[in-house]
Amino acid sequence: MCGVFGVWGVPEASRITYLGLHGLQHRGQESAGIVTARGDQLYSFKRMGRVADVFNESALDALPGTVAIGHVRYSTQGMSIVKNAQPFAVEFAGTSLAIAHNGNLTNAGELRAELEAAGSLFHTTMDTEVFVHLLARAKGTLVDRLQKVLPRVRGAYSLLILTPDQMVAVRDPHGFRPLIVGRAPSGGPVFASESSALRLVEAVAEREVEPGEIVRVDADGETSHRVGASLPQPHQCIFEHIYFARPDSQIFGARVYEVRKAIGRRLAREEPVADADVVIPVPDSGTAAALGYAQEAGVPYEMGLIRSHYAGRTFIEPSSSIRHFGVKLKLSPVEHVIRDRVVVVVDDSIVRGTTSRKIVRMLREAGAKAVHMRIACPPTKNSCFYGIDTPTTAELIASTHSVDAIADFLDADSLAYLSIDGLHDSVTGRPGFCDACFTGNYPVPVPQVRFEGRLTERD
Amino acid sequence: MCGVFGVWGVPEASRITYLGLHGLQHRGQESAGIVTARGDQLYSFKRMGRVADVFNESALDALPGTVAIGHVRYSTQGMSIVKNAQPFAVEFAGTSLAIAHNGNLTNAGELRAELEAAGSLFHTTMDTEVFVHLLARAKGTLVDRLQKVLPRVRGAYSLLILTPDQMVAVRDPHGFRPLIVGRAPSGGPVFASESSALRLVEAVAEREVEPGEIVRVDADGETSHRVGASLPQPHQCIFEHIYFARPDSQIFGARVYEVRKAIGRRLAREEPVADADVVIPVPDSGTAAALGYAQEAGVPYEMGLIRSHYAGRTFIEPSSSIRHFGVKLKLSPVEHVIRDRVVVVVDDSIVRGTTSRKIVRMLREAGAKAVHMRIACPPTKNSCFYGIDTPTTAELIASTHSVDAIADFLDADSLAYLSIDGLHDSVTGRPGFCDACFTGNYPVPVPQVRFEGRLTERD
Amino acid sequence: MCGVFGVWGVPEASRITYLGLHGLQHRGQESAGIVTARGDQLYSFKRMGRVADVFNESALDALPGTVAIGHVRYSTQGMSIVKNAQPFAVEFAGTSLAIAHNGNLTNAGELRAELEAAGSLFHTTMDTEVFVHLLARAKGTLVDRLQKVLPRVRGAYSLLILTPDQMVAVRDPHGFRPLIVGRAPSGGPVFASESSALRLVEAVAEREVEPGEIVRVDADGETSHRVGASLPQPHQCIFEHIYFARPDSQIFGARVYEVRKAIGRRLAREEPVADADVVIPVPDSGTAAALGYAQEAGVPYEMGLIRSHYAGRTFIEPSSSIRHFGVKLKLSPVEHVIRDRVVVVVDDSIVRGTTSRKIVRMLREAGAKAVHMRIACPPTKNSCFYGIDTPTTAELIASTHSVDAIADFLDADSLAYLSIDGLHDSVTGRPGFCDACFTGNYPVPVPQVRFEGRLTERD
Amino acid sequence: MCGVFGVWGVPEASRITYLGLHGLQHRGQESAGIVTARGDQLYSFKRMGRVADVFNESALDALPGTVAIGHVRYSTQGMSIVKNAQPFAVEFAGTSLAIAHNGNLTNAGELRAELEAAGSLFHTTMDTEVFVHLLARAKGTLVDRLQKVLPRVRGAYSLLILTPDQMVAVRDPHGFRPLIVGRAPSGGPVFASESSALRLVEAVAEREVEPGEIVRVDADGETSHRVGASLPQPHQCIFEHIYFARPDSQIFGARVYEVRKAIGRRLAREEPVADADVVIPVPDSGTAAALGYAQEAGVPYEMGLIRSHYAGRTFIEPSSSIRHFGVKLKLSPVEHVIRDRVVVVVDDSIVRGTTSRKIVRMLREAGAKAVHMRIACPPTKNSCFYGIDTPTTAELIASTHSVDAIADFLDADSLAYLSIDGLHDSVTGRPGFCDACFTGNYPVPVPQVRFEGRLTERD
Repeated sequence: MCGVFGVWGVPEASRITYLGLHGLQHRGQESAGIVTARGDQLYSFKRMGRVADVFNESALDALPGTVAIGHVRYSTQGMSIVKNAQPFAVEFAGTSLAIAHNGNLTNAGELRAELEAAGSLFHTTMDTEVFVHLLARAKGTLVDRLQKVLPRVRGAYSLLILTPDQMVAVRDPHGFRPLIVGRAPSGGPVFASESSALRLVEAVAEREVEPGEIVRVDADGETSHRVGASLPQPHQCIFEHIYFARPDSQIFGARVYEVRKAIGRRLAREEPVADADVVIPVPDSGTAAALGYAQEAGVPYEMGLIRSHYAGRTFIEPSSSIRHFGVKLKLSPVEHVIRDRVVVVVDDSIVRGTTSRKIVRMLREAGAKAVHMRIACPPTKNSCFYGIDTPTTAELIASTHSVDAIADFLDADSLAYLSIDGLHDSVTGRPGFCDACFTGNYPVPVPQVRFEGRLTERD
Repeated sequence: MCGVFGVWGVPEASRITYLGLHGLQHRGQESAGIVTARGDQLYSFKRMGRVADVFNESALDALPGTVAIGHVRYSTQGMSIVKNAQPFAVEFAGTSLAIAHNGNLTNAGELRAELEAAGSLFHTTMDTEVFVHLLARAKGTLVDRLQKVLPRVRGAYSLLILTPDQMVAVRDPHGFRPLIVGRAPSGGPVFASESSALRLVEAVAEREVEPGEIVRVDADGETSHRVGASLPQPHQCIFEHIYFARPDSQIFGARVYEVRKAIGRRLAREEPVADADVVIPVPDSGTAAALGYAQEAGVPYEMGLIRSHYAGRTFIEPSSSIRHFGVKLKLSPVEHVIRDRVVVVVDDSIVRGTTSRKIVRMLREAGAKAVHMRIACPPTKNSCFYGIDTPTTAELIASTHSVDAIADFLDADSLAYLSIDGLHDSVTGRPGFCDACFTGNYPVPVPQVRFEGRLTERD
Repeated sequence: MCGVFGVWGVPEASRITYLGLHGLQHRGQESAGIVTARGDQLYSFKRMGRVADVFNESALDALPGTVAIGHVRYSTQGMSIVKNAQPFAVEFAGTSLAIAHNGNLTNAGELRAELEAAGSLFHTTMDTEVFVHLLARAKGTLVDRLQKVLPRVRGAYSLLILTPDQMVAVRDPHGFRPLIVGRAPSGGPVFASESSALRLVEAVAEREVEPGEIVRVDADGETSHRVGASLPQPHQCIFEHIYFARPDSQIFGARVYEVRKAIGRRLAREEPVADADVVIPVPDSGTAAALGYAQEAGVPYEMGLIRSHYAGRTFIEPSSSIRHFGVKLKLSPVEHVIRDRVVVVVDDSIVRGTTSRKIVRMLREAGAKAVHMRIACPPTKNSCFYGIDTPTTAELIASTHSVDAIADFLDADSLAYLSIDGLHDSVTGRPGFCDACFTGNYPVPVPQVRFEGRLTERD
Repeated sequence: MCGVFGVWGVPEASRITYLGLHGLQHRGQESAGIVTARGDQLYSFKRMGRVADVFNESALDALPGTVAIGHVRYSTQGMSIVKNAQPFAVEFAGTSLAIAHNGNLTNAGELRAELEAAGSLFHTTMDTEVFVHLLARAKGTLVDRLQKVLPRVRGAYSLLILTPDQMVAVRDPHGFRPLIVGRAPSGGPVFASESSALRLVEAVAEREVEPGEIVRVDADGETSHRVGASLPQPHQCIFEHIYFARPDSQIFGARVYEVRKAIGRRLAREEPVADADVVIPVPDSGTAAALGYAQEAGVPYEMGLIRSHYAGRTFIEPSSSIRHFGVKLKLSPVEHVIRDRVVVVVDDSIVRGTTSRKIVRMLREAGAKAVHMRIACPPTKNSCFYGIDTPTTAELIASTHSVDAIADFLDADSLAYLSIDGLHDSVTGRPGFCDACFTGNYPVPVPQVRFEGRLTERD
């Protein structure tokens, strides 16, 4: 769960990248960083926190040049420490190089052990660092090196790489994570994980970087290359559509809001509630699906749960603990919408079930006559190894409980999920999706060696 | 624009108040503060920023005791500096006293000049400080003093006052600002500007503090007193219902969400759009009215504008300025909802018109066939002197422009406001509202002497 | 223990005052503050910490004008909190006023109780605030008010007061604390606690503000006034010469370094050590006296103890505690100077005896054959109520132990103090000193009512 | 200019190291860091600033274990950034490794180019990082690797290396920088740049790590190894004795204070001043030499210049600049010691001459009849490449000016330096010194390739 952004040939590249990262903030709030290039130098600034908190005027002023890449990160490995913030920048073969990575490698542990045995020194516990060591030990141009190295790397990666004189965008052959290219008003290319980031900087989306494509930009323009000769089936992450991407984005050739509404409509047909009085979303991720559900079912849609604008920060809990503490900070019920009503509440997915349970209780305490929960995807039964921060399979409630048992746990009057066919039918755009989290069909072998560090640096 | 919160007789009063303030965060994000009492001491902590940023574990630990009041503030006077954060605490007549104030006095300048001439020293530029000096120079119990002093004070005030052995809640005779009293699970009373803050701390709303009522709490329980003999007509702030209060709150005896939906329905009847394809809100303040409008009009409701969860912080703008910069950080269009559609966009109110104009343009750029703007209240023509932070009358676009001229400025295909009758008909609960911002009927004379400071302290 | 500084009519008054305060930093390291005047406004900035840490470019830039007063503070009352930092600035009788105070009032508790009863609100626990309330309740010009108010105030005060159009310097009738006036290169007057602060800003010392004198400066120049009709005997603080003032300063008409050397020479005559091999100071406060002793005694002077430049900050001690921890951070022995020698170690004074004891042990562990301690003043037997931060009388080792018993406690081979006559004979300049800490002859009655706060504000 | 410290087998190793670093603070104030080991993990914390400011309780608590190394750094390469703080810690060959380095390599540029060409990635611009890459690419135990790698590395290094199960101390074959080993009360070995750090932690100095020696410590005890077969002449840095080391330290087998006093005595014989009234030091670095001079010359020694305890921090200068600004913040004259006297002022060395010039002027302005400057070493004519932060040769005033010309520049009545023979005669202890800064006799070839980074990371 990360976002990447890059611009080439625009004035104030660091400020433009800062805005672009704001448009990707939903993809990661734990750290943010920007690297710019000017002359033969790279300039880097990164820190824990959100984009607006990480950067101030003087930090942006210290990032000169018309070329930049940026990254927002939601740590996927335990404590997120500054050293693991990205872009990751090093002195490299007589020049310097920075890399921003969205995704997760599945053979990073093996590759790292091999590199360490050959004398490579690792500074972080990020799998991203493996790329850089492999590239440093290859020969030739950066594209040559990528073409030698990437066939050895397995897993999900949408990459932006910056050296003082070129920028490279790469997407893994399966195309797990989105990566699009657009055009800035100045004519320079702009890369971003989602189109939401382009609009903010007044760039126009042009196309997706293709699965297995390398786009190289330098002073002479853009060229396209292939990662390797053979190309597997695409396996675009279907969960981006369900939850992760912004509803105003286009990804994988489809409009996210439209997909979500289609999911909601299909869910209404598959799993109707006979005597429903009102359909409410769990905002904001369930909003579009709930609207689709309500329209299809002909049941009034209401904002029965209000989302606080101020949640998302760390909160201190009284020791005399408050019921539903975490949920209450984020959501609160609009009582007269709920009281004495049969409520259909639509959420995007269920992970451990603990939050959903608190929501059901909150609705019951607000006086709901019945609470029917509808979920905009099939049961989440399998952990993701390609970049979505799901807990281990054992922690996923659907991996160990039937739908009925989950309904019992939630104390819902009914619980129903979208079918896997319903999901695939609702998703338009370029075909070919990874649905391993629902089906267990992992298109790339999952890791055998755990990738962990032996060095703890505090900042 | 402020929020107040107080608890009596609960464990960890500072932590409970911290949560309560979180539930009032929408009433003021510039500063936050808490004062607690233990033994014969008061303990104070306040700082610029939002509740979650102002307080950490150690700050809360340094606020001992089972009694607390808190305040969130949106500065209404130029630069907001720490000294103007509340609660305002002083050493007072051999004891100590803290006060938290929501509202605005209209004769503070005159009272202050008089007090200074008699040797009172002012430490802030807040009108709130006037209360304390008047109280210090009166005699008797705190309630005695209040009864002597409050008849001299004009304007809007919902107050919480804390001394080491008592808490007092007061609401001005007009009842401009809301103030409710609830009951904590421990049995102690809880005071808050809105019911949204009670739910978070598991307290149950009981009643409003009445206009002109003084509620006093001490170890022996609660007693009720009157501010003065005569009681004017209530003049509850109608704009709280339109914009300021949270939709899940109850204020002035009515449910805010329900009022807003009724407003939207009435607006649909008063100002229909013949060939509308879609109704969208300006989120989040226009959401409930837009839903009401869509339901009444029988036009589909869609989330055509997405609100960023991360807006609200200060953003650095590139010098090569971005079109609609400020609005873009907060809102982005869902293009396929808007493209080639006749769009009805519903917002709560128009102040200067600049933001509305950017929204209309954003919708046009997203491909709207037509943009019809509907506003959930009458034209805002007059500045507020009772605690809402409106600009001067001259800056209000409706004070100098006709509705047609505003529509031209916004470049909207049509613009229509709710009628004043429509507004009053839609608002339920206790009767008697101030609508001076629309009608100019000020129930309390507006200030003649400006209240300003001659001392600038930086922190 | 504080320092005050003021300038009138110099460009960049805030920066000049900042430098002046650096020259007084030895008089207080806990907080620092500056108030400037421009037009009809005062501008204030103060914070906990040392001058160089409190102020940065932007803080100084926010203090405009050509007139300023500043203050450094060493808290004399428990926890030092920001609210007690000075200068103390208030809105005052239609204008504003700031005050910086060095000294301590002995009847502040009584005056405060009286003022609170009359409706004055106190914001701090500083006795300084009493001045301001008394001034606010008096009538007439500032000098008129001072002449009415100061006869009611007892104790030690060297004051600087600033309003938008005048500056006033006052010294109490006893002249307890120093206060001098000099001339800036621009021709404007400069006030400072010690001459060390003048040199830094290129001002030239002119004279002392006289005991009981009020010097008023405004756009028309300087005028001199009297605090009251009668003038007591001067009682200048003799301990300023012994310890507190900087050795390069002139105070009370004498040069501090010269006084300290004279003390050392007299001590050598009064209390010789027969077979001494070396005289060493406890640096830096004992340095000048040790040099005088060594020269008079004809014994070599050596730097047998090295003082760390980095002490003075808070240090974290291992739980497995280190012997002489606190002293070791500050001082370390030069072993070959000490080993097998008869050492005379000269220090300025002994308070509780614990530090001296650690120094004797440190010298013994470094191999001294004998350790003879010589003290540059008589035994400190009485607490100070006029502004020096001594512990209570009960904590002063000399109040409960004979010199022999102290020598035993220190484990010194001998211990001797300067005689009271020796001290007075060594001090030159304007006659008339307070020696109450040695003799118990308090020239002003000591406080009967403790002055303490009921409000704790954290920052 | 750095200091290193290490302990093995002591409780609270991080706290002990923190104290040890305080004892080495004079060797570097720009950054400080500690790495500890527990189990198979290393724990690191480092930051810009002084030891007391870098570490707080929670930082030390996050550094568990009984084994630690630490480092204080004075940056020798332009802007000192956090990434260049030490110890430098990496994930290394399936384990982790941290290194702390005092000294400077002369062939780091060549080695780095070679390593980068072979695929090593550099994260800092420190020559220290070269060691680690070379070690990572060698094979065998850590001592094996060191014995293979160190013969390729040229220049000055006193190193401490820590892995989870061993600590290694190394000193280059020339022995440029000091490194001693002592014994903690617990029996464990303690390594430090100077003995001043040992005393603070109650360890007893045992011996120097020999030039060209590797001391390895693990759970089984200590073993000694050689860097390589051949051993050059020792070239201990003579400037450590003149200026850099603390006067209470022993280095290279001699006591620093004693050496400095011997230097002062020799200087008095070589360069007497006929009619001198007083000898004063430039404190604190000239103090011991001045005492030696005064004793030998039979002239009174006085503290004619007072050093501020609060200098050393960054100060903001008024734009209307103050004469001798920088020096005035640090030093101030005691006028009556200087006025109308023939003054001999003793300083350790002259670099650019600008500070000395300000000191001479300050003494003249304080009324000196004559100012004779005496310098405790020969003219500094050549830049150091072995770890002392001298400016380039061209900036050294003595490289381009005769002594007479320097005297003219300083406006001193006379200027004289110690002779090179006088210097060598005064220095006792283990023979063999590097005096390249005076003579230009560089024992190790100076760098041909500049070592600079292409990556700027801000923190």
